[in-house]
Amino acid sequence: MSRVQPLSGYPEWSPQERIIETHVIRELERVFALHGFGGIDTRAVEPVERLAGDSEAAKEIYTLGRLNAGGEADATLGLHFDLTVPFARYVEERQGTLQFPFKRHQIQKVWRGERPQEGRFREFYQADIDVVGRDSLPAHLEVEVGVVMARALQALPIPAVRFHVNNRMLVEGFYRGVGITDVAAALRSVDKLDKIGPDGVAKELAAQSVPGTATEAILALAQIKAEDSSFVAAVDDLWETSIRVEDHAAAQEQLAQGILGLTALVDGLNGAVPGCAVADLRIARGLDYYTGSVYEAFVEGHEDLGSICSGGRYDSLVAGGGFPGVGLSVGVTRLVSRMIKAELASATRAVPSAVLVAVVDEAAREASAGIADRLRARGIPTEVSPTAAKFGKQIQYADRRGIPFVWFPGEAHGEVKDIRSGDQVPADPDAWTPPDPDLHPRVVTG
Amino acid sequence: MSRVQPLSGYPEWSPQERIIETHVIRELERVFALHGFGGIDTRAVEPVERLAGDSEAAKEIYTLGRLNAGGEADATLGLHFDLTVPFARYVEERQGTLQFPFKRHQIQKVWRGERPQEGRFREFYQADIDVVGRDSLPAHLEVEVGVVMARALQALPIPAVRFHVNNRMLVEGFYRGVGITDVAAALRSVDKLDKIGPDGVAKELAAQSVPGTATEAILALAQIKAEDSSFVAAVDDLWETSIRVEDHAAAQEQLAQGILGLTALVDGLNGAVPGCAVADLRIARGLDYYTGSVYEAFVEGHEDLGSICSGGRYDSLVAGGGFPGVGLSVGVTRLVSRMIKAELASATRAVPSAVLVAVVDEAAREASAGIADRLRARGIPTEVSPTAAKFGKQIQYADRRGIPFVWFPGEAHGEVKDIRSGDQVPADPDAWTPPDPDLHPRVVTG
Repeated sequence: MSRVQPLSGYPEWSPQERIIETHVIRELERVFALHGFGGIDTRAVEPVERLAGDSEAAKEIYTLGRLNAGGEADATLGLHFDLTVPFARYVEERQGTLQFPFKRHQIQKVWRGERPQEGRFREFYQADIDVVGRDSLPAHLEVEVGVVMARALQALPIPAVRFHVNNRMLVEGFYRGVGITDVAAALRSVDKLDKIGPDGVAKELAAQSVPGTATEAILALAQIKAEDSSFVAAVDDLWETSIRVEDHAAAQEQLAQGILGLTALVDGLNGAVPGCAVADLRIARGLDYYTGSVYEAFVEGHEDLGSICSGGRYDSLVAGGGFPGVGLSVGVTRLVSRMIKAELASATRAVPSAVLVAVVDEAAREASAGIADRLRARGIPTEVSPTAAKFGKQIQYADRRGIPFVWFPGEAHGEVKDIRSGDQVPADPDAWTPPDPDLHPRVVTG
Repeated sequence: MSRVQPLSGYPEWSPQERIIETHVIRELERVFALHGFGGIDTRAVEPVERLAGDSEAAKEIYTLGRLNAGGEADATLGLHFDLTVPFARYVEERQGTLQFPFKRHQIQKVWRGERPQEGRFREFYQADIDVVGRDSLPAHLEVEVGVVMARALQALPIPAVRFHVNNRMLVEGFYRGVGITDVAAALRSVDKLDKIGPDGVAKELAAQSVPGTATEAILALAQIKAEDSSFVAAVDDLWETSIRVEDHAAAQEQLAQGILGLTALVDGLNGAVPGCAVADLRIARGLDYYTGSVYEAFVEGHEDLGSICSGGRYDSLVAGGGFPGVGLSVGVTRLVSRMIKAELASATRAVPSAVLVAVVDEAAREASAGIADRLRARGIPTEVSPTAAKFGKQIQYADRRGIPFVWFPGEAHGEVKDIRSGDQVPADPDAWTPPDPDLHPRVVTG
């Protein structure tokens, strides 16, 4: 038997911490459902060839073997590393029966063979929402999905979440207009701005044969940031003063469409959750498949954690095309891990029980159980003392668990003691109710 | 890219079916919490040497490899095949901080490399409850845990669940008394009674050198079944008339203790959920580690599915000893799969939305979104029509999804139509509420 020890990259929470995680998941689900997003759940495994389709991610995949095959993997199945790959397969499989546009949320664990570090795990929960259309998807859904996510995150006991948003059409139109031909490669370089700085990006772009004037222009574009549509004037100015290719009409049209999209997104997000969004034109998001709005969200004061939610608009969820959509994904475990470590939130107690019914002696256990059942019948989480020890010991039992009330059975009904204040009053198990904040464990800030 | 097709043994549900699964999980959680069982969540992986500790299960373990290691497994980690192994490790790791007796529920997926068949999957949800003590655990908790589970299963939209219960002390005392030395081996044979019949069991016992008189006695014991404590007289009679070993005082004492335990269990279970329990002395449960009450539960009319919930009392959760407990585990996916296939239950709709707010034209989308937000502010799941198509099309959109109400914005407030009855009435988005049964999708029987 191996020594018992935590595995790096596989976080687990104490019962009290798990209440925080459950609260986060439930609140996200609640807000998603309030906006019409129903939940699905997919299997944890996919054929490896599907998982490996995205070559960038391939290195992170866990494959499955069988112990009775001598530990040999047949490597045909692997654990999903995100919820997009299984969702795409789910939609492809059920395209004949799903109703489009199809809205879903999905909250499950994913696995990645990455080197564990702060906020980066090998097994973690993600919470995704997507809207997927059949053949077409109205642009206003890019705003709607962002609003749903902004509200869901706002419902959590964490500091304000700020969405940094951009639009791929804006970027592509601009890049093309100033003479960049391999837009995807240039985007991947700009995506490293925070890591390697403007000089590093310029060096990479030079290696891609991007003209110096274009590099200058797109680095200037990446500096533009605004909390409202004032970014439009800045982009327009930069566009007018940049050296453009001769035939830039199509690029300009794409740029204009992107500006409209980004304006609608920033205004829509800030309209729904004031101050939650900033147009940040450096947001590139390396993945090739985004084609419209892109989002990256950070917790204020915890930007060092990296993005806790990201996503974007894509042309097709399914390889063959025809399923345009927009989606966002929350790194639940990353967020919860920070909430716990930085003590952003805590649970008021570690157990569901609001009441411990004391047991006078073992012969009277049934009477105590009867009282517990009468409380439970009215939805009050209750447990019965496991032993008929002295009342002091039974109170200690409740105290150690954070159970706020102890019920002492008596001739008529009995008495209930708030063990925090020491107050003890006669009470009827068919009528007494704990004050609302004590009914269930709550998650509170700080 | 591989063809898209379901994987045998990895069930997935449609959005409407997933509502049934979610309902089952939530109801179990609700009843568990009402009785003081808080939830924990453990990582999906464990060191293989821990998983393989139980040699019987070893053949079913999925090991993890890494794709970048050429598909080779290092076979040091595997996916858990139940929730007991990770729970034992969790308790061992946290024995210094957990409060004992520790009650927990745990509802997660587990993986087994078994050949898939009806009710047997490779990836499935289990829902476990356990109470674990430190050094000791009062026997009445064997009744309590059974009662909690009986109530949790009773809360589900399924036919009555019947617990077949037995007691290992009763069986062991009896077996020893009639001259069986290797009780565990005999138990494993009796456990096959349904599969190989009394003659098959007798043959196996003969191979174990069990005397014919003993075989006769324990096969007679396995026939005893009663819905109340009337089994006691039958056991006593059989004991008195069986050929016993000369020095059977200790065995008789063990038998007597087991009879007390089983009496308390049957009476306790039937007291809490009338008719839910039957003392069934053929219930052996192959696993060696049970030492007191054992439980196997079946859905009435669906006995062919096999047990949907089982468990028992054990001397120690942790290999080193010192953590006696009692627990029960529900095969959630097995149960849900039957609920869906046999149409035992269905969801009243496939989406959370109770209301679709129609959009008059795209310019008026914001007004519709505002109405939706006013409804959501009062907890009414609402979505806005994705297009401003003709109202007929928008009604069709709602109809296809099962959204019961369509809201038509108007000068003053607007009107709401129940698209099932066709009734349409003026309504105020700050006051109107759908009738309670329509607020959320419900899971109904049949």
